[in-house]
Amino acid sequence: MAIIQELERIAKIVEARLDGLLQPEPVPSGQARLIEAMRYAVLGGGKRLRPFLLVESARLFGVAEASAIDAGAALECVHCYSLVHDDLPCMDDDEVRRGRPTAHIAFGEANAILAGDALLTLAFDILSRPSTAEDASIRVELIARLAQAAGTEGMAGGQALDLAAEGQSLGAMEVARMQRMKTAALFTFACAAGAALGRADAMARQALAAYASAFGEAFQLADDLLDAEGDAVAVGKAVAKDASRGKATLVALLGVEAARARLAALVDDAEASLTPFGDRAARLKQAARFVASREA
Amino acid sequence: MAIIQELERIAKIVEARLDGLLQPEPVPSGQARLIEAMRYAVLGGGKRLRPFLLVESARLFGVAEASAIDAGAALECVHCYSLVHDDLPCMDDDEVRRGRPTAHIAFGEANAILAGDALLTLAFDILSRPSTAEDASIRVELIARLAQAAGTEGMAGGQALDLAAEGQSLGAMEVARMQRMKTAALFTFACAAGAALGRADAMARQALAAYASAFGEAFQLADDLLDAEGDAVAVGKAVAKDASRGKATLVALLGVEAARARLAALVDDAEASLTPFGDRAARLKQAARFVASREA
Repeated sequence: MAIIQELERIAKIVEARLDGLLQPEPVPSGQARLIEAMRYAVLGGGKRLRPFLLVESARLFGVAEASAIDAGAALECVHCYSLVHDDLPCMDDDEVRRGRPTAHIAFGEANAILAGDALLTLAFDILSRPSTAEDASIRVELIARLAQAAGTEGMAGGQALDLAAEGQSLGAMEVARMQRMKTAALFTFACAAGAALGRADAMARQALAAYASAFGEAFQLADDLLDAEGDAVAVGKAVAKDASRGKATLVALLGVEAARARLAALVDDAEASLTPFGDRAARLKQAARFVASREA
Repeated sequence: MAIIQELERIAKIVEARLDGLLQPEPVPSGQARLIEAMRYAVLGGGKRLRPFLLVESARLFGVAEASAIDAGAALECVHCYSLVHDDLPCMDDDEVRRGRPTAHIAFGEANAILAGDALLTLAFDILSRPSTAEDASIRVELIARLAQAAGTEGMAGGQALDLAAEGQSLGAMEVARMQRMKTAALFTFACAAGAALGRADAMARQALAAYASAFGEAFQLADDLLDAEGDAVAVGKAVAKDASRGKATLVALLGVEAARARLAALVDDAEASLTPFGDRAARLKQAARFVASREA
């Protein structure tokens, strides 16, 4: 699929930008260790789906790719910080991520927590720079949206719901709410950020928000299906963990067949949302098909 | 001292603002627990020295108190997040703070980490709002400065140096560098933020930066003296911990007498830096005397 090549192309550019942002300067060894842990957490893997959505959303409005990459790098910092903290022993206690030891296994818990904190901080640092957008009011909009996507009404709130849910039996509505906050919020930010960079009108913003919402739910469903049915080597992290922990997923609640049907409907929804953009949105449509069909 | 009443007055306003920002909305219980942990970490104590410096610095340029309070509340969120994470078992392993159980003792480690994350995120959320400053470019400046003060070149970097230093023998220069990053950076932000809100000129900014630097070092020295000589009940947290952990402090390196002399010199420096502002800076001068002489 052409989409895979395009994803890989954007992923490389994002990787290079993150690498440039986190150059190990000549600093005392403790500080160098922190930067090393941040680099470990943020470089060397990941499909960079969120930056891809951001870049492609911005492209709909004629925004140059390079100027969307910085916002994409900031978004990836937030995503990777959340993985580092979620993997901690007191959270999900995961030891493998992307086929490698998780950050706290490689660097110790204290450095992993600090690296996550510093990545979250770096995200706002990047968004505050003129290289992200010349217009300060656009930068402020990106910062406000990212803070909301990552905060108590978004990712952190969703993780709190997830923690509280262990051993409880949640209904489908509650699981969907939790996943909207924990996972879909950053996809929603990606599309909203692209629209903000492109000074999109309200109609276009609404269309992209609908796309992001369907995309986010599809991504999570596909992830849960991989956890339920996948192969740990291909997936690059432990599988069947949700069931063994008694974690509620929509797959467990709906069953695999119904989950697959819902996934297909979400991809159709995602595509339909993009109708106003015509052919310009072809890659975003392909991206939705891609996440639904991925095997790792 | 009049300064104590003024500190208490500002502290009350900051407390009320933080209380308003973290209202427990009708949300699912996991999310409510997160907000409760954030409220625990950020409300009910603390001298609010950093917001005080911010408000007083802004006042030098005629900025209304109310409009500096929001930036002060954001700063306090960052300070309190750092306390929560630094207190964790894998960091400094502290069980008492401000005379109460630390956040991870009261709410568990996972909620404490998340509450810290969410407070850091909230800080940038607050700074992105028009209530902090009408002009978006001022908001962006505050965000950029806070991210730098909290990141790898500031607080997080300083904490990494602190972690790496345990069991090592650092020299006075290294300890001073670590404390500048870990502690003084937020005081420096406070004064720089006041100047930014007031659209101060370069000379005024430089004067305030010199004040903040002396203030920050004085604060840390006074803190180390309290740890070396203080009474746990009055201080509200464990004392003599630095020595028992083999943590390097300037007090341990210089000796109590020399540390006291240095502290007095720093207060003089802080005062002298404010000369350009004349009587308008009386409270900032008193604040420097106050932190140097505090007994808790």
